[in-house]
Amino acid sequence: MELKALRPELLAAVEERLLALSSPEPDEPPPLTEAVRRALFNGGKRVRPLLALLAARAFGGRTEGCVDLACAVEMVHASSLILDDLPCMDDSPLRRGKPALHMAFGEDVALLAAYALLGGAFRAAARGAARLPQERYPAEAYVDELAGAIGTAGLVGGQYLDLHPPTAVDFAALEYIHSHKTGALFIAAARLGAMAAQARPAELETVTGFAKNLGLAFQIQDDLLDARSTPEALGKPVGQDRGKTTFLTLSGETACRSAVDALLGAALAHLRPVGDPSLLEAFVEYVRTRTA
Amino acid sequence: MELKALRPELLAAVEERLLALSSPEPDEPPPLTEAVRRALFNGGKRVRPLLALLAARAFGGRTEGCVDLACAVEMVHASSLILDDLPCMDDSPLRRGKPALHMAFGEDVALLAAYALLGGAFRAAARGAARLPQERYPAEAYVDELAGAIGTAGLVGGQYLDLHPPTAVDFAALEYIHSHKTGALFIAAARLGAMAAQARPAELETVTGFAKNLGLAFQIQDDLLDARSTPEALGKPVGQDRGKTTFLTLSGETACRSAVDALLGAALAHLRPVGDPSLLEAFVEYVRTRTA
Repeated sequence: MELKALRPELLAAVEERLLALSSPEPDEPPPLTEAVRRALFNGGKRVRPLLALLAARAFGGRTEGCVDLACAVEMVHASSLILDDLPCMDDSPLRRGKPALHMAFGEDVALLAAYALLGGAFRAAARGAARLPQERYPAEAYVDELAGAIGTAGLVGGQYLDLHPPTAVDFAALEYIHSHKTGALFIAAARLGAMAAQARPAELETVTGFAKNLGLAFQIQDDLLDARSTPEALGKPVGQDRGKTTFLTLSGETACRSAVDALLGAALAHLRPVGDPSLLEAFVEYVRTRTA
Repeated sequence: MELKALRPELLAAVEERLLALSSPEPDEPPPLTEAVRRALFNGGKRVRPLLALLAARAFGGRTEGCVDLACAVEMVHASSLILDDLPCMDDSPLRRGKPALHMAFGEDVALLAAYALLGGAFRAAARGAARLPQERYPAEAYVDELAGAIGTAGLVGGQYLDLHPPTAVDFAALEYIHSHKTGALFIAAARLGAMAAQARPAELETVTGFAKNLGLAFQIQDDLLDARSTPEALGKPVGQDRGKTTFLTLSGETACRSAVDALLGAALAHLRPVGDPSLLEAFVEYVRTRTA
């Protein structure tokens, strides 16, 4: 199943809003605009913003009020990918089949674009949040959620341990790395959508459990895809993880596929109390069958 | 005049809060904590957070509610200095007399610390703002202010043009660079303080004019200090700007000193309508006489 088939109008709303959010400011040096836009529009599937919007819909929320929040998550994600690819991190020359941002614009401009995207993400989140009802979740709760997905408990903590793994990487260490690197932003996306829909705190726990399992399944699939796919299908060199401990090298393909199934099953089980789980269930189906 | 003499209790409040804001989260890898703390506690004079707190005081606000906002500005500043020193930017091995963060921790950890500081700054700003009255300035206005100081209209735009200057750098180009690199965060600091004190929009314009002139004076002084100071007094190699166009190479020392005086005079003139300008006037006196 293609993700864009799920709700094409939501995807279109995300694309349109990301374009507006990356409009050049007065006097903006054109290469900065270009770098930010290249980072945002490089064929990303918009997994995280769609997750946010579908979570809003699942809890009966209108998605209009949530598009800025969804885009904020995507901006953080795009920013983090710029960092990941840098020579001092994963040193990856390609991203989705094209030169990584630092290869196209130089490390300095890539870093400034990453920085601008992060600042822009918080601006988008705060502005989006301000247009929502403030009784249950005031604007700062949304900002806090996004910040939490970035810091030690999120991207930064996961990337640190990915780059500086313990001597013997076991399943627990891998789960730590990926629950932070991938999971935290998946969780933030789903929670922000549910918060925008004014879901109750107990419902936020539900959606957290859903997104946590979904994110880990997504990451194990990434390991499988990296090892088994072709460069054409994946848009980057395959086998990049070679030499690195992954879920695949640790447990083998059969166990990984079972783990993905189990995690997606657990994600679905979390949806039982949700008012209208159908779109989130369809999202799980997308993850189950994705090829890139 | 020493900056810390101005209001030692405000400085102490900033130091204490920065320590709390950089407390390790559960499971935080110790080198990350250490890197973030080294970036925050490396002898910085806390110029920007003090500016925020003094602006709050000048408009009759209690400074307690503003400490988080003041610290958020300092966290953004500390984060931006990590970036500035990187090999792909200014390639500076020293910062305030000690190894720059990437020399001490590696580029990857330095970047992750910069990222964590930026996320943490928004969290601090949003939490601080949420504890203030929301009628005139809702929480998102504070977040927006901080984001504005980071993006193209702020640090990112200024740093870009500093690294990619036009062929002939004239006074206007230098003013663009420094009004963005230094000015934007000075302005954000002063405005955030005034907003926390519930200053009226017209008063925000006043404080903007004050901080804009102060920031530019501060930067021209930096050029003078870089060229004329000793490494011991400055805490980093002097003459780092050699080969670069600066206010000093463009206009000479006498004109630079006159410009500093004129800008500080203009800053003071902006203070006329302010309720209690005395502390901000003292701040101008600090800038006038600083030696590092």
